[in-house]
Amino acid sequence: MLYIIGLGLGDEKDITLRGLEAVRKCEKVYIEAYTSLLSFGLSTDGISTLEKLYETPVTVADREMVEEKADAILSEARLSDVAFLVVGDPFGATTHSDLVVRAKKLGVQVQVVYNASVMNAVGICGLQLYRYGETVSIPFFTETWRPDSFYEKIQGNRSLGLHTLCLLDIRVKEPSFESLCRGKKQYEPPRFMTINTAIEQLLEVEQIRGESAFNEDTDCVGFARLGSEDQMIVAGTMRQLQKVDFGEPLHCLVIVGKTHPVEEEMLDFYKLKDDIHPKNNNEAA
Amino acid sequence: MLYIIGLGLGDEKDITLRGLEAVRKCEKVYIEAYTSLLSFGLSTDGISTLEKLYETPVTVADREMVEEKADAILSEARLSDVAFLVVGDPFGATTHSDLVVRAKKLGVQVQVVYNASVMNAVGICGLQLYRYGETVSIPFFTETWRPDSFYEKIQGNRSLGLHTLCLLDIRVKEPSFESLCRGKKQYEPPRFMTINTAIEQLLEVEQIRGESAFNEDTDCVGFARLGSEDQMIVAGTMRQLQKVDFGEPLHCLVIVGKTHPVEEEMLDFYKLKDDIHPKNNNEAA
Repeated sequence: MLYIIGLGLGDEKDITLRGLEAVRKCEKVYIEAYTSLLSFGLSTDGISTLEKLYETPVTVADREMVEEKADAILSEARLSDVAFLVVGDPFGATTHSDLVVRAKKLGVQVQVVYNASVMNAVGICGLQLYRYGETVSIPFFTETWRPDSFYEKIQGNRSLGLHTLCLLDIRVKEPSFESLCRGKKQYEPPRFMTINTAIEQLLEVEQIRGESAFNEDTDCVGFARLGSEDQMIVAGTMRQLQKVDFGEPLHCLVIVGKTHPVEEEMLDFYKLKDDIHPKNNNEAA
Repeated sequence: MLYIIGLGLGDEKDITLRGLEAVRKCEKVYIEAYTSLLSFGLSTDGISTLEKLYETPVTVADREMVEEKADAILSEARLSDVAFLVVGDPFGATTHSDLVVRAKKLGVQVQVVYNASVMNAVGICGLQLYRYGETVSIPFFTETWRPDSFYEKIQGNRSLGLHTLCLLDIRVKEPSFESLCRGKKQYEPPRFMTINTAIEQLLEVEQIRGESAFNEDTDCVGFARLGSEDQMIVAGTMRQLQKVDFGEPLHCLVIVGKTHPVEEEMLDFYKLKDDIHPKNNNEAA
């Protein structure tokens, strides 16, 4: 049996009892490193904290390992119980459909343990989840690659009065261009997109397109380290949020659509006040 | 401090370790009964299972109690640690913004413990969460009240190729019309909408509107008891799903938009095969 277990958003304590029970009975436990390296602080310390709580050794599986050794992992899962731990929910922002499809094709049974995902946890800001349109991803722009397909999607959502969740780029263990040319993989240091960069790129695209999908005065909500004890949530215009230091990763951004009074009331608690400096807030509003 | 703690979707074992830790240190623990009565099987037995695991007495707070006695609950939370448990995520399908807003206005500190919500758990069917449009609610039609505002929303989503999550009506502890007339509250038995009824109502509205937002051949995914050990997920056309007995509550429905090959591949595992009778499936695909 392959257990795909969501770990939630904050740290090792966000696993569910159901998830913990499954982990403890597995013979082999992997943890995906795509997003977890940044959000869970998976240094050697982080891993040993997990291992202590789970009472079992945990193997970090980076993107390459999952892609290259999936069949080996799945063979193990055919003969014994194997856990694959993922930050957030198994089918949230980072989906693991691929692994499930491969497992099913090999006749390996799969069980999923749900958990919170950034896709639902942003609900804490008061904007109602059923009033969100399509989610967009904002990729890091380079000199030569500046894809802006998110623009039409945001435009579409806003024309319907809907909110837009923007997932911001994460680059973990990317082989460097130079190293690929030399035929020997070396990795770029991990990068994550800040809310500031995201807004900068959004406004750049708006300036080029000029279709008024949004502007500097458009209301947004910035989230940093959602679910962790020092999570930070600030509501304000793009111009205002661009000046806020949201600190450590991960960040995400919501572009606010048309609001209902009950949404406004909740959002107000997170709004930048002129006289108060934004501060970390690990509580709701 | 008021802790608003998501319990997840299945049963008492879906609480997170962070949530359990908070519950155990609270002096008073309430559980909201809006949706939990149906999905968590909250008979007296259900509550005592929770109390045993949480090692503390739990008070069931129905809709009336939360509305009428919110101030009393919040006064307690000003002086001591109080937990308010909700099925799913605190800001998922059923939002608790009201309680948070009231708490903040009274100066009561609030902490939220995230968990899975139906809003993200539907990701298990393979349709990617970022390809969903606005979520709709399907209310029970009566002789005189047949609201169909969901129709334009589904139409809007489908015109953009997006999937639509339909949340189905739940009626728990509704005062009966006769009893209101007599001035003495008596309650209707709890009702939940089945996938079959939802599809019937959807097709009825399509027939009246006639704008071809969808039809009997439109692909859908039906979910019953998502997150519980006997969860059931079946993909098929509206016509096909209308004949499936999904059993006990809660049910929800996804109307499939334009699919990508990776979504198709995953969805295939849930598809009705002509030769196989649909069965409960408590595993992924």
